[in-house]
Amino acid sequence: MTELTMTLSAVEDLCLKTLVAAGASMDNARSVARSTMLAERDGIRSHGLLYVPIYADHLRCGKVDGKAVPAVNRPRPGAVTVDAATGFAHPAIDQGWPVLIDAARTNGIAAMTVFNSYNCGVLGHHAERIAEAGLLGLCTTHAPASIAPPNGRSPVIGTNPFALGVPDGAGGAAIILDQSASVIAKSEILLRSREGRQIEPGWAINPQGKPTLDAAEALKGSMLPAGGHKGFGAGLLVEILASCLSGAVLSKDASPFSGTAGGPPKTGQCFIAFDPAAFSSGFSQQIETLVAAIAEQEGARLPGTGRRHARAITEIEGIRVDGALIGRIEAFIR
Amino acid sequence: MTELTMTLSAVEDLCLKTLVAAGASMDNARSVARSTMLAERDGIRSHGLLYVPIYADHLRCGKVDGKAVPAVNRPRPGAVTVDAATGFAHPAIDQGWPVLIDAARTNGIAAMTVFNSYNCGVLGHHAERIAEAGLLGLCTTHAPASIAPPNGRSPVIGTNPFALGVPDGAGGAAIILDQSASVIAKSEILLRSREGRQIEPGWAINPQGKPTLDAAEALKGSMLPAGGHKGFGAGLLVEILASCLSGAVLSKDASPFSGTAGGPPKTGQCFIAFDPAAFSSGFSQQIETLVAAIAEQEGARLPGTGRRHARAITEIEGIRVDGALIGRIEAFIR
Repeated sequence: MTELTMTLSAVEDLCLKTLVAAGASMDNARSVARSTMLAERDGIRSHGLLYVPIYADHLRCGKVDGKAVPAVNRPRPGAVTVDAATGFAHPAIDQGWPVLIDAARTNGIAAMTVFNSYNCGVLGHHAERIAEAGLLGLCTTHAPASIAPPNGRSPVIGTNPFALGVPDGAGGAAIILDQSASVIAKSEILLRSREGRQIEPGWAINPQGKPTLDAAEALKGSMLPAGGHKGFGAGLLVEILASCLSGAVLSKDASPFSGTAGGPPKTGQCFIAFDPAAFSSGFSQQIETLVAAIAEQEGARLPGTGRRHARAITEIEGIRVDGALIGRIEAFIR
Repeated sequence: MTELTMTLSAVEDLCLKTLVAAGASMDNARSVARSTMLAERDGIRSHGLLYVPIYADHLRCGKVDGKAVPAVNRPRPGAVTVDAATGFAHPAIDQGWPVLIDAARTNGIAAMTVFNSYNCGVLGHHAERIAEAGLLGLCTTHAPASIAPPNGRSPVIGTNPFALGVPDGAGGAAIILDQSASVIAKSEILLRSREGRQIEPGWAINPQGKPTLDAAEALKGSMLPAGGHKGFGAGLLVEILASCLSGAVLSKDASPFSGTAGGPPKTGQCFIAFDPAAFSSGFSQQIETLVAAIAEQEGARLPGTGRRHARAITEIEGIRVDGALIGRIEAFIR
């Protein structure tokens, strides 16, 4: 394996060119390229350059409409809806963004739902963006079903993450929480299946609802939620906000985010923004005290510390990336 | 042990008289008595009559001000704040309730925070009440700290539950989710400590941060979150909404809900209400499909099924209750 070093701006540029070559409009490609760069910056490789060939394939097969023009509505003062028109999630989110931020500041709280959408990349980055506007952000996105209800066997919800972005009162984020409902990322089970390795106990069940260590069986069965029924509950909350409230299709009916079959997944997102100043004058002080109470404990880490650490390095040194992956991406441009 | 049978209205009446005798105003007592009856109705005994002697003790020692007059404000169209004035949470919530519901309908979404507050009883009942107004409710309340951050040893957050109330489109609730951040209820560890029994592996750590099966050590140490760092994350989300956003004291600084020491806990709550009709016309249909996809799986149960079952029985048969407990409660009236 040949490893290359790339700057973050080279990552963004490569992604932009690839998506445009595969059929995306410049505006749409720009939103997705930025998200890809942010994922690489924070060391979240599953949503970085690894995803670019998938984006390009999905543009070509029509699973995502690269020329989609999102439609933003504001049916009530605090309610913003965006029809992603089976395009990428990112440009739809970008289109509604200033409306959401304005609505939250004016009303104290606002929510933006997105439907007819697609994978939105790293959810925590959207939460962080809300925090950078000085607002508290609670974000949810759902995904094709992979988790069965407790004691059941058929997946009903996806890995359905939620993310919280907490402003630090100085234009940045004091806390970024970003967690899925499952014990382990689906990408880890996919990887083990490809490598023919077993998975760990407690990760998944087979299609008959029994525990399994066989990665291929796990992919046909169901992933297990973190914390049993409580993890399922957290995923159900996300399902109801990101799918039911937004008017997206349910996770159980969504086409997979991987592979070219099934047409557009038509999934959804929900972003809630609170203006802390509308509720309390002491918010930033309390957040600072809370953060210190966690950070000062030996061994304990604030959520998001790993990403911050990766960011500090990649912003200076760039990223190291597999040359073969870059070759596969560049093939879409030639 | 002598067991008595009581109707639900007798439960409510006994609680009302006891709280008034212990110093609560009639208005304040009425809100708490109703909450107590609802807990017994749904079989949640820890928040039912068992709590009435504690309420009465707390009224007498000044941990809760029975004559408090809550103050409701609406600083922005979608933001409602209530100062519970170190009284019970319930009358503060009741006072702000119509403002929250009106704000949610007008704006599409609204949030009500409560501070200088106290234990709010069964959180799911507040979520259900939002659902009965045809709105989607996401409710949080925090509690004196009992859970340390992952790899830490000092509790920073409480059992911090969240509850979701999902309207069924016909004046009721299709789903009520109500779950704390801990593996097990603190009341279970307290019970085992009193009985000198061991706790189960994975429930708690001792003050040195090591796993323990000793209930008394666990109470001095920290409870473990459900799903490890993801359970802590869910509890942190609740902390930030119910404590930091509301302007209540942090869980780590709150006086205990049990015992008479420490003065008012000054904890808080946050209730978010969404009008689904503002976002999507298909909400009820999707909820119905989602509920069916869970309920139709053999062995799988929708969250809240146990409470519904208890309710169906107690509404007809009343409750069975320990005569000695009733004696202890009636002693406050005589």
